[in-house]
Amino acid sequence: MSPLVLTPGDPDGIGPEVTAQALVGLERPVVVVGDAAAFERAARSAGLDCSRVDHWPATPAGVSLLDPGDEHEPVEVASIRAAVAACLEGKAGALVTGPIHKAKLARRGFHHPGHTDFLGELCGVERPVMAFVGGSVRVALVTVHLPLRAVPDALTTERVAHTVRTADRALRSQLGLTAPRLAVCGLNPHAGDEGLLGREEIDIIEPAVAALRADGIDARGPVSAETAFRWAVAGETDLVVAMYHDQGLAPLKALDFGRSVNWTLGLPIVRTSVDHGTAYDVAWTGAADPTSMRSALELADRLTG
Amino acid sequence: MSPLVLTPGDPDGIGPEVTAQALVGLERPVVVVGDAAAFERAARSAGLDCSRVDHWPATPAGVSLLDPGDEHEPVEVASIRAAVAACLEGKAGALVTGPIHKAKLARRGFHHPGHTDFLGELCGVERPVMAFVGGSVRVALVTVHLPLRAVPDALTTERVAHTVRTADRALRSQLGLTAPRLAVCGLNPHAGDEGLLGREEIDIIEPAVAALRADGIDARGPVSAETAFRWAVAGETDLVVAMYHDQGLAPLKALDFGRSVNWTLGLPIVRTSVDHGTAYDVAWTGAADPTSMRSALELADRLTG
Repeated sequence: MSPLVLTPGDPDGIGPEVTAQALVGLERPVVVVGDAAAFERAARSAGLDCSRVDHWPATPAGVSLLDPGDEHEPVEVASIRAAVAACLEGKAGALVTGPIHKAKLARRGFHHPGHTDFLGELCGVERPVMAFVGGSVRVALVTVHLPLRAVPDALTTERVAHTVRTADRALRSQLGLTAPRLAVCGLNPHAGDEGLLGREEIDIIEPAVAALRADGIDARGPVSAETAFRWAVAGETDLVVAMYHDQGLAPLKALDFGRSVNWTLGLPIVRTSVDHGTAYDVAWTGAADPTSMRSALELADRLTG
Repeated sequence: MSPLVLTPGDPDGIGPEVTAQALVGLERPVVVVGDAAAFERAARSAGLDCSRVDHWPATPAGVSLLDPGDEHEPVEVASIRAAVAACLEGKAGALVTGPIHKAKLARRGFHHPGHTDFLGELCGVERPVMAFVGGSVRVALVTVHLPLRAVPDALTTERVAHTVRTADRALRSQLGLTAPRLAVCGLNPHAGDEGLLGREEIDIIEPAVAALRADGIDARGPVSAETAFRWAVAGETDLVVAMYHDQGLAPLKALDFGRSVNWTLGLPIVRTSVDHGTAYDVAWTGAADPTSMRSALELADRLTG
């Protein structure tokens, strides 16, 4: 089976620890690309065997540790670059990432708003879609890190349709669903209540859903977020398309906190990630919780196993 | 024990049926105020005994049915008026309401946007607060039925503080908590991320929380909605104050769909309600689900029993 490639992320955060803990007992071969000293320390604490290697191993087995050792950029950035290359070259089946710290990296000249955007650039994809999986509930976001005030004007029919199409393709190609069912949220309370509580449903979202349905995509909506998540909980939809961050993530994380995984859609590679940050305050105290990393590994394994 | 007073709501909706079904087996005396023919039909279907009365019974027992019989306004409106009067006069311990249909009532001259506003007027309270209870999770809303685009400008420090103060008082006076813990959500993703994703947290919400804390109210925030609901699920907060409709209700209903109850805060009376509408399409088909009405009755009973 093709190995997974894993980047623990910021060596000063909880990434190395949660990675080492999550890898204990995993049967699939994994190549860890990151700061070697930090990961070896975390591996010792977790009782994880790993072999330091200088090049991508010809036949990966167990846990191999590869330090990209680039002096020109932070180790976590060089690691992501090397790991994506391994996926694009077919040497790894999927990429699983630990947390990076955007503000710290920005001070060192890394000007991407986050992983997703950087991965898009490395893969030559203009607009990857950020999605999350928590248990059986899946959410894709039309807008992500925008002030709430900026959300209504950021919505366009094209952007909604792009998100739904990208999600539909990923559900087919990565999850293997033959007829994915997608629930499209409205923007306003009660999905606008027929225009009484806002017109974005009528002017923007309904035309997108109509165009998608005409193309044979099983998109339903716009429906209220309550309805969309009720469908998701009941197994009546495969993915909820939320118009903005809290509409999608507050219900998802309420239902499944700690097990949620970030899943990037629209890339030519499979990529999952923890959904938490570097948590500097608990790094190297033994208090870090590997649940999200374990879920990210499980999902990557399932999508490519 | 003081009786509950119950208004089934629109006689053409599912209110009479869910009311009759939910009352089967209830030990506390109840006076139902509403359209007598509709409720008697629903009671027969549910196998519920009820006694038609012409006036509020001196010593209510079992289920009494009182039709307000007012020719000047719709029966469901006259019923609410009579039921609130019974509560204010101390004849009933709490009011439980079934669904009304706002658009239909508007055509007949009823110009309140909903129950809550009308109840405020009947009780002489200017700004009641809409809250919801689903299992152990409670949510109060700073804004309710506004287009999302209008939410940021509707937030003021005073409005946030009013909502939290009203919720704090209700948790003490109605729920009997001696030291209520309230989690206050931000408006923006990640509660604004220190101003990077919007300034309403810094300019509006933080000053409200500071003023509340100075008054001895245990308000914490602004925190992201994900964090607030994680606290709620873990029992680490007694109530989540959400800035807008979907931020509060999508997680609540995802967690607890069907059992959610509307709870009005800030009135001199206790009032709970179903959280669903009239559902004309399933009325009188036998398909209506009494779960929300049953939860509304249980909560009213617990708050005043």
